[in-house]
Amino acid sequence: MSAGQLLIIGGAEEKIHDGEVLSKFVELAGDKNSRIGILPTASEIPDDVSSDYIHTFKQLGVVRVEVINVATRECAEDPSIMELIDSLSAVFITGGDQSRLSELIGGTKLHETLMEKWKKGMVLAGTSAGASIMAKQMIVAADTKLNDDKLTVKLGTGFGFLDHVLIDQHFSQRARFDRLLSAIADNTEIIGIGIDENTAILVHDNKFKVYGEHQVLVMDGKSSNYVNVKVSENGSEELTISGFQLHTLTKGYSFDLANRKLILEKGIQE
Amino acid sequence: MSAGQLLIIGGAEEKIHDGEVLSKFVELAGDKNSRIGILPTASEIPDDVSSDYIHTFKQLGVVRVEVINVATRECAEDPSIMELIDSLSAVFITGGDQSRLSELIGGTKLHETLMEKWKKGMVLAGTSAGASIMAKQMIVAADTKLNDDKLTVKLGTGFGFLDHVLIDQHFSQRARFDRLLSAIADNTEIIGIGIDENTAILVHDNKFKVYGEHQVLVMDGKSSNYVNVKVSENGSEELTISGFQLHTLTKGYSFDLANRKLILEKGIQE
Repeated sequence: MSAGQLLIIGGAEEKIHDGEVLSKFVELAGDKNSRIGILPTASEIPDDVSSDYIHTFKQLGVVRVEVINVATRECAEDPSIMELIDSLSAVFITGGDQSRLSELIGGTKLHETLMEKWKKGMVLAGTSAGASIMAKQMIVAADTKLNDDKLTVKLGTGFGFLDHVLIDQHFSQRARFDRLLSAIADNTEIIGIGIDENTAILVHDNKFKVYGEHQVLVMDGKSSNYVNVKVSENGSEELTISGFQLHTLTKGYSFDLANRKLILEKGIQE
Repeated sequence: MSAGQLLIIGGAEEKIHDGEVLSKFVELAGDKNSRIGILPTASEIPDDVSSDYIHTFKQLGVVRVEVINVATRECAEDPSIMELIDSLSAVFITGGDQSRLSELIGGTKLHETLMEKWKKGMVLAGTSAGASIMAKQMIVAADTKLNDDKLTVKLGTGFGFLDHVLIDQHFSQRARFDRLLSAIADNTEIIGIGIDENTAILVHDNKFKVYGEHQVLVMDGKSSNYVNVKVSENGSEELTISGFQLHTLTKGYSFDLANRKLILEKGIQE
C-alpha cells in the first residue's frame, strides 16, 4: 500500500465553488463519498477558519465535513480524536502559525496517527502554515530583506511527510525568495520549494505536479561547489553561493524530486 | 588602451566620509588629483542630488567636482558639455529614472563622447537608475508580484557600456527577484545582475568584483533546456523554467562574466 497524496497549497486559495485547488482536494478525497476533517490548530481563530472551510467543502458537494478540534497537547492524545481521524478519507490542515502545529501536535499520538493513516493512503492537504508543516524541515521565523535589510531564517521541525524538502508559501506575494535562498544555503542537501498563493503542488511518489493560478519555484543547491554564509552584526545574512539550480513551474507541469529536474515528457503534463 | 573601469552601484550608497563604495569610486578616479563630473539627468531634482554628491566627494578629498547639467537633448549636443567631459577623469551618473537618461542622452553626442572617453580609460560610475543605464539592455518598468500579483517587465535601451548583461538595483531591498527572473526568462542569452543597496560591482575586462555592504545576485539562463512564459489575462507573467544557474556574491568575491562562474582562485578575493 502506497502513501497518500499530499496537496501542499501556498495559501490564499480560492474558496469558491469552482476554485481549482480546493476542487482538486475534494476530488482526491473521494468527492461526495469523502469524509473530510479540518485541522485548524495553526490558527488563533480556529472556529472562524473551520466555518469558512466547512462552507466551502459543502459548496463543493462534500456532505461529511468534520472539525478536528485540537487546542492542547492533551487533545492531541485523546482517543476520540484518533477515532475521528480513523473515520476520515482526507485531512485539511489550515493556515495560521506553523509553530502552533509543531508545539501542540508534533510528537503526539495525533501526529503518529496522521502519519500512519497517510502511509496507508489517506489524502492530506495543507495551506500556508499547513503547507510548511508537511516536511520534516520548516521555516518558522524570518524577517525579509525588504526595506529593513534584515534577514534571519530560523528552522523548526514539521510533521515529516516529506524529507529533504523545505516548503515556503505566499512565495512571490510576500517576496520570500531571500529567506528560502538563505535556508537552502545553510542546508544544501534540502530542496527548497516556494509556492505562490492560490497555487499548489500535488506530491506523490517523489514527484509533484502543479495546480492553480501562479508559480512554484524550486531551489536546488546540491550541485553547488561553494557556499559561504556571512552573518553581519545586525543578524542579517549575506550569502556567497555558486551554481544553485533554479526551476519554476506553472499549472500542469511536473517535477522529479529524486532526480531534481523538470519532467518534460509528453503525457505527464496535462 | 583598454576601456575604463565601471563601478555599478545598487543605490542608497553611504554618503559619508568613509563610505566604502564612494571611497572606491574616488580612488579609481584618481583621489585628490581626480576631476569628477556628476551627471544628474536621471533625477527630477538634479540640483539637490548634485549638491549632495558635491558635498560627499569634497568630504572624500576631491577638489575638482563639476556638474554636467543636461536637461534637454539640445544640451546633450552642446560642445561645451563635450569640453567638460573631456576634462574629467571620471563621471558619476546619479539615480532617478533611467528612462530620462535614455530619452535625454541616448544617441546624442554626449552619449557618444562618454563611450569614446570610457573606451580610452575614463572611469564611470552609476547608482540606481545610473546603474541600470550602464548596459545595452535595461529594465525600465515593472510592477512586482508583491501583494498585487501583477508583473510586467518592460525593457529599454541603455548606454551600452556592457552588453548581454541586465543590471537591476535596490535588489533585495525592493524584492526584485521576480522581475529579473522574468526579464531573463525572456532573454536567456543575457546575464541578470541584481545589486543590493550600498553595494557595487566593479566591472573590468569581462569580470566583476563586489564592494560594499550587501549582496549581488547573478542569474544565468543560458544552460536552461526549457523556458515557457505565460502571460495571464491581467498581464501578469507566470514562468516555467528549467535549470537556471544562480550565484550570489558578497564583498571581495569576483565573477567571470565570460565563463559565467564565480572566481574561486586565491589571491583574486581580497
